[in-house]
Amino acid sequence: MRDTATMVNGFDMSCLDALDPELRRIVERRASLLGPAYKLFYRNPVRVVRAEGVHLFDPDGQAYLDAYNNVPSVGHCHPRVTEAIARQAATLNTHTRYASELILDYAERLLGTYPAELGNVMFTCTGSEAVDLALRIARFFTGGEGTVITANAYHGVTTAAAEISPSLGPAVPLGRAVWTVAPPGEADTEAFATRVRTAIADMNRHGVRLAAFIADSLFSSDGIQPDPTGCLKPVVDAVHEAGGLYIADEVQPGFGRTGEAMWGFQRHSIVPDLAVMGKPMGNGMPIAGVAARPEILAEFGHKIRYFNTFGGNSVSIAAAAAVLDVIETERLRENARVVGRYLRDTLAGIAGGTPRIGAVRGAGLYVAADFIEPGTGEPDGDAAIRVVNGLRERRVLISATGPHGSTLKIRPPLPFAKTHVDQLAEALSAALRDLDHAP
Amino acid sequence: MRDTATMVNGFDMSCLDALDPELRRIVERRASLLGPAYKLFYRNPVRVVRAEGVHLFDPDGQAYLDAYNNVPSVGHCHPRVTEAIARQAATLNTHTRYASELILDYAERLLGTYPAELGNVMFTCTGSEAVDLALRIARFFTGGEGTVITANAYHGVTTAAAEISPSLGPAVPLGRAVWTVAPPGEADTEAFATRVRTAIADMNRHGVRLAAFIADSLFSSDGIQPDPTGCLKPVVDAVHEAGGLYIADEVQPGFGRTGEAMWGFQRHSIVPDLAVMGKPMGNGMPIAGVAARPEILAEFGHKIRYFNTFGGNSVSIAAAAAVLDVIETERLRENARVVGRYLRDTLAGIAGGTPRIGAVRGAGLYVAADFIEPGTGEPDGDAAIRVVNGLRERRVLISATGPHGSTLKIRPPLPFAKTHVDQLAEALSAALRDLDHAP
Repeated sequence: MRDTATMVNGFDMSCLDALDPELRRIVERRASLLGPAYKLFYRNPVRVVRAEGVHLFDPDGQAYLDAYNNVPSVGHCHPRVTEAIARQAATLNTHTRYASELILDYAERLLGTYPAELGNVMFTCTGSEAVDLALRIARFFTGGEGTVITANAYHGVTTAAAEISPSLGPAVPLGRAVWTVAPPGEADTEAFATRVRTAIADMNRHGVRLAAFIADSLFSSDGIQPDPTGCLKPVVDAVHEAGGLYIADEVQPGFGRTGEAMWGFQRHSIVPDLAVMGKPMGNGMPIAGVAARPEILAEFGHKIRYFNTFGGNSVSIAAAAAVLDVIETERLRENARVVGRYLRDTLAGIAGGTPRIGAVRGAGLYVAADFIEPGTGEPDGDAAIRVVNGLRERRVLISATGPHGSTLKIRPPLPFAKTHVDQLAEALSAALRDLDHAP
Repeated sequence: MRDTATMVNGFDMSCLDALDPELRRIVERRASLLGPAYKLFYRNPVRVVRAEGVHLFDPDGQAYLDAYNNVPSVGHCHPRVTEAIARQAATLNTHTRYASELILDYAERLLGTYPAELGNVMFTCTGSEAVDLALRIARFFTGGEGTVITANAYHGVTTAAAEISPSLGPAVPLGRAVWTVAPPGEADTEAFATRVRTAIADMNRHGVRLAAFIADSLFSSDGIQPDPTGCLKPVVDAVHEAGGLYIADEVQPGFGRTGEAMWGFQRHSIVPDLAVMGKPMGNGMPIAGVAARPEILAEFGHKIRYFNTFGGNSVSIAAAAAVLDVIETERLRENARVVGRYLRDTLAGIAGGTPRIGAVRGAGLYVAADFIEPGTGEPDGDAAIRVVNGLRERRVLISATGPHGSTLKIRPPLPFAKTHVDQLAEALSAALRDLDHAP
């Protein structure tokens, strides 16, 4: 049994003998304490002891260029965030059942980045919890239980979130009220909505009423499909006509990642009923949340007590407020737009010189490059993963995604600069040469 | 519609006019930003801006004695914990897919406090996520889906955890595969297991196979029932005979709260199959986890990818390690035992002088006092809540629990001292006098 069965770029425990003795000891110790559910990245896992900006450092002080981690979105250990955490942790760290304005000031500011229709926010600790809460709200509000998702979606690891996450693999069955649709294609403005309508009709024929459609507007785990940006608008209509809610999963595209907008759904000119936030929200502090139309929360909130002990605690809120500060003062959304464009252009240039890379696409600092078999054009997950490992040996960190694991996933912290793109490009070219000259 | 319908000691929004103008403004602002799901404690909510040890402080610098919060278990803003957080946040805060020994050192130390059978630990961010994960593991391992819980249990707020949390009230339906049993009574060593056996038999008759029995060994939301300590042992046998797993919910009794043991199940001389930890684990940092028998995790871990983005991140682990340090160096378990005994004796003395308080019971610093109607002996939730509010006006913070909300819930940070017990006792006596002289 391969323990990498359902994970792209996972370390395979059967390759333990190939590791250097110290790393091998750590990996074995890890397996013995944390059990087999914990996977490491890379054929040769990376040891890290320190991080700063867009770099991680190993115990020997070697720097790794981080072109992968979207959680430390304003940069690893950003001083403004770490100072906010340290100050608040020493002052007060409590829950939301005492009156405090800290959380209100942040909520007001956060909601100010959303369309006016989304007037309330609730806080959780993880994106999984936020997805789970959004599903609870949608099911309560609609009286339905059906959910429509994309074919290789990932929305989280709670029982309810895992049931709408086919990318977790066949050992995690989808819920019985879950219908899947193929993600949007390149020039697919109407066809995607047609597929959603067909899925809802089939769901209804099976006696299941729609609660929600949920999607990441970048379709990250489906192989990253930021375009066409018009394709979600008719989906909102289809979902509303069926009595369901539209949930925007903003865990990946949110907080300026796409450069073009603060929230991914804004690129599609839609306003969702619920929006789920997570990963970059506290730059690594466990904070996530759900923005909602107040009319949708009203009855749920009156009848149902939702108390998340650590959700919206003082320290997490302080970190999240500092993240908004840094995004604004360092103009990180603009940086994502400009450097993201440069990154795509650079990758397109490299793709032009090899038959191995098909399309390059992305939005802001979320960029994809498809590996294909030169003859057939079929997805080539093997080449992608060899390149991911080739980059790791050159101390540049990225990963791969999509149903075949054939799409490079490049998603650095937002302060990524053009010089970092150049370094990434150089390492990528070298890894491609290795691939061509491999036995 | 009262928004306190399902919450003991919740502020009732219809009483807004009674608040001072500044607090009223905050409460209104809160409702408008966070929506109606967010409840405040007390008839007159408490504003807090700072905390230290066993005290919270309002904006005027007035100190409140905290006899309620079990999350800042080693004391609010403990310097050893806040220093660990600040140092780690400035050094590295990353996920578990790079090799790091920080999490392994902590895991080893944490597992060292458990019986040897529980050899693995997995990390989440919240107790709800940990309960949810334990249910996923139990269902995968057993192939069953049925769960047996106590009648007023609370296990969390994810969809799956809420389905086994009847204390959330009638608007949150139990799952269809959930059976409830009355919690243990005072001298009820065998009867509780008999009820569990009956529930499992009924479950099987309905074609549902048992996945797990789950209980908090202090039965906190059932009104706090720490005794008799023998009552869980025959339950383990009943659950195993039916092919299910025993899940110990240690979110409330864990990390030394009971004084007598590090973990609540140890008071009952049992070894569970899975143990869920949460609240006090990081003294307010969002960290929680599941300790497991490795043979139960083996197949789940190989076939299912469980990755919790913030679960076991570097900063949460640093906080959790500091918490273990403080529990040991400040001998907080022993303090919980000694001061908890003094608290129960003191309350028993007060109870002796009034017909309003029936039983006083507890373990360590988790203490209950039942309010009853003097004539009938029936539970008196109204008196309990008036006393809770009377204490709050004297700046002593506790709450109430149980199916009737009639049981005082006293659960302070573990460094609570005998002088704090004396202060609590004085305020309680005064609140009781008010009750007797109320119109």
